[in-house]
Amino acid sequence: MMMRDQITVVPLFRGLRPEQCQALADIAIGKTYAKGQNIFAEGAEAAGFYVLVSGRVKVYKLSPEGKEQILHVIEPHDAFGEAAVFAGHRFPAHADAMEASKTLFFPRHAFLALVERNPSLALNMLAELSRRLHRFANLIESLSLKEVPGRLAAHLLYLSDRQGDRDELLLDLSKVQLASLLGTIPETLSRVLAKMVREGLIEVQEGRHIRLLDRESLEELATGERRLGAGI
Amino acid sequence: MMMRDQITVVPLFRGLRPEQCQALADIAIGKTYAKGQNIFAEGAEAAGFYVLVSGRVKVYKLSPEGKEQILHVIEPHDAFGEAAVFAGHRFPAHADAMEASKTLFFPRHAFLALVERNPSLALNMLAELSRRLHRFANLIESLSLKEVPGRLAAHLLYLSDRQGDRDELLLDLSKVQLASLLGTIPETLSRVLAKMVREGLIEVQEGRHIRLLDRESLEELATGERRLGAGI
Repeated sequence: MMMRDQITVVPLFRGLRPEQCQALADIAIGKTYAKGQNIFAEGAEAAGFYVLVSGRVKVYKLSPEGKEQILHVIEPHDAFGEAAVFAGHRFPAHADAMEASKTLFFPRHAFLALVERNPSLALNMLAELSRRLHRFANLIESLSLKEVPGRLAAHLLYLSDRQGDRDELLLDLSKVQLASLLGTIPETLSRVLAKMVREGLIEVQEGRHIRLLDRESLEELATGERRLGAGI
Repeated sequence: MMMRDQITVVPLFRGLRPEQCQALADIAIGKTYAKGQNIFAEGAEAAGFYVLVSGRVKVYKLSPEGKEQILHVIEPHDAFGEAAVFAGHRFPAHADAMEASKTLFFPRHAFLALVERNPSLALNMLAELSRRLHRFANLIESLSLKEVPGRLAAHLLYLSDRQGDRDELLLDLSKVQLASLLGTIPETLSRVLAKMVREGLIEVQEGRHIRLLDRESLEELATGERRLGAGI
């Protein structure tokens, strides 16, 4: 396959014009790795990012005891290392080939020079990533809306209990942390909170204070006897 | 709240440096909308994008019969219209205020000028969107891995049946369409297919041909009597 054809199928580059894909092909360098070979190490300078053409790659951290925690398994067409390269940070994790793997390597300096000459390349990438994020957020919402309201209700009742069984309670986590605890994203959590407000179950006040207005319904939500309305 | 403080809490701008947030604050224009007021119309030139500061906004399409289909409900701190602005397209949908709403408006020409002077702003936004996409993809995978293998097995058996009950079948949808049919994303679908290959259930051949190797196990997967291994 021509290098440009390999580039047009990469989700990160979807939405780019043919001449932009060609410009990327012009700076890409093919690199191959044997099974088990290290591709980059945590803490190394992010001198470029990779697109996997064939094979499989694991991105992982090592605990102080040497235990491996896999963050992502990269399948063909996926980019990896790109966030560190875009941000100008060091690699936050290790990457090893799990099988014999072919990659395209995009050197950071050449990529930056490309974006400087051609800002619309970065804008088209931003457009595509924005569209994917909206789609992903919608999907997470539809996947987690069955369970998140119940888990949130249970968490609010637990907090109230721990804070002296009062109806006013203080959320002790940021929205990002709470979303993660409930297995969802902040966007969905905001929507579920807004729904609970509209159904008269809670009142959200300044500075993460929440007042429970209808404990009985919250308990029914937590046990699954009740669902939040399907409305928006 | 200062405009810069409103900007630092926007997920789209997370990861930007303080002076980059200040540069965005300098081009932002506050706009307010009454309940029910239109913010932009489908097909209109995308002259700028919005961040919701307070209130609620619906992004929707109208069917030829005038039926409204809501695509997103925007909550405070969300950006909307940005993908069309980045790509230089027209707005693909309508946006109306569902309540009295305050927004920040970022004019396209001022934003483009900012990116041209300062490409690292676009790169830092790309870095943050990439990181969020990786996190979202992981979450979708963990949310959908319970159900997608069974649905995929059922779909493969259905295709085989429709194509003359042979063990070799042709996937008649693109991976993006099939993922959407199964309620997941192409990344997770690829991983489930790879797992089925490793467990000896199917063989994936060139050009979307799939060979069923173990119908009995696929049927057990489809009925929920069997799970795919937890490994990667």
